[in-house]
Amino acid sequence: MSETDLAPVDGATELDNVADQLDEDDRLKPEFVSAVLDAVEANDPDAARALVEPLHPADIADLFELTPHEDRGPLAQALTDLLDADVFAEMNDYVREDLIDALEPQQVADIAAELETDDAVAIIEDMEPEDQQEVLKAMEPDDRAAIEEALSYPEESAGRLMQRDLVAVPEHWTVGDAIDYLRGHDELTTDFWEIFVVDPGHKPVGTCALSWILRTPRNVAMADVMKREQTLIPVDMDQEEVALRFQKYALISAAVVDAAGRLVGMITVDDIVHIIQQEAGEDITRLSGAGDGDINEPIGLTVRTRVMWLVINLGGTMLSASIVGLFQGEIGRYAILAALMPIVSALGGNAGTQTLAVVVRAIATNQLTSSNTFWMLMREFRIALCNGLALGISGGLGSWLLLGDPRLSIVFAASMLFNSIVAGLIGVLTPVALDKANIDPAVSSAVFVTTMTDIMGFFSFLGLATLWGLGS
Amino acid sequence: MSETDLAPVDGATELDNVADQLDEDDRLKPEFVSAVLDAVEANDPDAARALVEPLHPADIADLFELTPHEDRGPLAQALTDLLDADVFAEMNDYVREDLIDALEPQQVADIAAELETDDAVAIIEDMEPEDQQEVLKAMEPDDRAAIEEALSYPEESAGRLMQRDLVAVPEHWTVGDAIDYLRGHDELTTDFWEIFVVDPGHKPVGTCALSWILRTPRNVAMADVMKREQTLIPVDMDQEEVALRFQKYALISAAVVDAAGRLVGMITVDDIVHIIQQEAGEDITRLSGAGDGDINEPIGLTVRTRVMWLVINLGGTMLSASIVGLFQGEIGRYAILAALMPIVSALGGNAGTQTLAVVVRAIATNQLTSSNTFWMLMREFRIALCNGLALGISGGLGSWLLLGDPRLSIVFAASMLFNSIVAGLIGVLTPVALDKANIDPAVSSAVFVTTMTDIMGFFSFLGLATLWGLGS
Repeated sequence: MSETDLAPVDGATELDNVADQLDEDDRLKPEFVSAVLDAVEANDPDAARALVEPLHPADIADLFELTPHEDRGPLAQALTDLLDADVFAEMNDYVREDLIDALEPQQVADIAAELETDDAVAIIEDMEPEDQQEVLKAMEPDDRAAIEEALSYPEESAGRLMQRDLVAVPEHWTVGDAIDYLRGHDELTTDFWEIFVVDPGHKPVGTCALSWILRTPRNVAMADVMKREQTLIPVDMDQEEVALRFQKYALISAAVVDAAGRLVGMITVDDIVHIIQQEAGEDITRLSGAGDGDINEPIGLTVRTRVMWLVINLGGTMLSASIVGLFQGEIGRYAILAALMPIVSALGGNAGTQTLAVVVRAIATNQLTSSNTFWMLMREFRIALCNGLALGISGGLGSWLLLGDPRLSIVFAASMLFNSIVAGLIGVLTPVALDKANIDPAVSSAVFVTTMTDIMGFFSFLGLATLWGLGS
Repeated sequence: MSETDLAPVDGATELDNVADQLDEDDRLKPEFVSAVLDAVEANDPDAARALVEPLHPADIADLFELTPHEDRGPLAQALTDLLDADVFAEMNDYVREDLIDALEPQQVADIAAELETDDAVAIIEDMEPEDQQEVLKAMEPDDRAAIEEALSYPEESAGRLMQRDLVAVPEHWTVGDAIDYLRGHDELTTDFWEIFVVDPGHKPVGTCALSWILRTPRNVAMADVMKREQTLIPVDMDQEEVALRFQKYALISAAVVDAAGRLVGMITVDDIVHIIQQEAGEDITRLSGAGDGDINEPIGLTVRTRVMWLVINLGGTMLSASIVGLFQGEIGRYAILAALMPIVSALGGNAGTQTLAVVVRAIATNQLTSSNTFWMLMREFRIALCNGLALGISGGLGSWLLLGDPRLSIVFAASMLFNSIVAGLIGVLTPVALDKANIDPAVSSAVFVTTMTDIMGFFSFLGLATLWGLGS
């Protein structure tokens, strides 16, 4: 692997330097992070700056994320002039809040002014209302108006994500007109990949990739180059839907329109890539009851989120424990039941979680709709039947060999088969029902499914054992 | 919401039609799917074609995914002329394999010839070797060479993802030269967002966004417009790393280079968006032991994947059941122990899974590196301590009120606190250790963590109870 593989470099001379600071996965090496923090601690900001200067803004942001909370302030002091708008745009929300809190409103306003609307909004939206007002007051009227407009849209909506700087041209222009316009207007954004063609009412009528413009003679009309099939994004659409739409139609950028269909902004795919990652990742941590699961979240918030989930689970396990309590007599007379019953419930829980994970993903990616819910239910039923038979037979034979009680082994096998089927059906029906009720299935399904498989596992195993007189 | 919000439309006349077929989440409505399948069943392919024709290729692909396995063949027969290369490019791998198997090698070759290299490779790479050879034989020599080259790179590597059609120009050209070249060469791709500038050895020296070219006078040299900082992708890099790099540096496209640093291809962000989604989604289903969790996977493969995981879990639960077996005497004398012990193990399992989900995500997104592993361990220890205290105190008080045995409640509370701390530490250390050993932590962590929390839960609760003479 040649050195040029390793990182974006700021001129060939610094190439060795930057390549040395990243490991094969593009992560800053621990030695490098320690070297910077040691320089800061030794009160040698010049040395720290010399180390950090060649880094890409995304890597400087990573450096702050990898630095312990209490060392971030001194690090920021040492690197003030490197800590520019691009670095803030790349930074984790919680880490950014940490640093922003330490800055004066005028400094925040200067940083926000350099950013695209969507990045500036991301910085300002989480501030306290008073601080937000102070920062907005310190901004230029134009920037301020753009940000205030964005803040007027709901959180996590297209309106917050979009940038207002875009290139839109009238239908009757030629390719040459468009190129002259772009060359003649220095104030236009340089960060765009498509040009929008609009009618006199500023409604988008077509989209034109820059490559098509470059490949077409100057005298051709824009209306003849543009693609009329457009994917428009309503300004109040949720960011998760925006991300799915970008993915489904393989978009690079898309026009954002208001309720009247007028072009009000543009979303580009680089802003969407973060959201896809984030939304898909949140499903894992939500499914396991860890909320958003951001490692930079304040610890008090993390504890509250997780304890709430554990307490709900505590309720579920107490419910299933009360089932066990009903059979205290049988267990007292035949204590081996107590050793086998957690196996039945645990395997039901595992099988249910498998189904749940698959169904939650399929719902989130629009693969599971009402068209194929019944098919999915039948699919999981067949899988559960196969799994239940495999586990029931192997578990039954194993327990027979170990414990030598054929009746106990038959009860054990039958309850495993039964609980596997319960797990498969509940694992589909719970998230589907929650989704229909507009409740996030990733957040709420798991506790219900595992409580049900616990209860059904204990009840079927102990109940069958009692019916067959095993503990009498 | 206006109708134009709902979907990309193929000319204004079909607007109502297409908008009617999608629900608010861009998914095909079940009524529409049924209408198409009814038309196919009624042997009326014209009616089916009329319904499907206005759809975007991505929606036609979705239609096949939402159609039950056994109806896909007849549907494909009815829609032959609509089933073009773009539809295959958008289709789920398993569904595509289904359809491709039914086509002649020449038909597959025709479809592949229309696609970009990466999409053609995706279709051909999963075929049986003999079928693959037949298809390759039926292709034009140029296309064939491109695909054979791509197939020579490892699966899921940059070489498989890249397209060979790209625009590269020499450094000494002016902007005008580049534009004239683009206008004069019809055979060039139209699907590009940046132009690569190369040296005489065909090594990339800079990248130039099309917007910069459009904004710059014709006489300026490309070398003065291009950005020298480049993110180059080695041809053998794993696709997950490629995706992280696109995300980290907000790339739209990137040059792929061979071991000698020569430009061999280009990857564009629209191909990466799928991978980010897929990799993040796989972590959820892998963590719960459901493998890749694709709902279109053949059912036999799904059963094998899941049973393997359940059998490993069966081993884990048998191990923990044997711990319970050691205390049969105490349980026989004091059966309420059997009701409370699953609560201790279940809460440990839940807490461990929370930590695990957060750590697995943080590793996958490069947020957790050796620089902050110790900090992360301390963070989770503090969270576990808080959670354990909260649950221990509430569970202890609750059980005292319900059961009235203060010694039992103290044992219950202490073992919950202990197990919560075990869960937090094991939940960090297990995935970190597996990652260091180059084993995917998402696949292998969960069973180890839950087995440990089961064992520790049973052992601490029953052990403390025995020490204090509760079952004697």
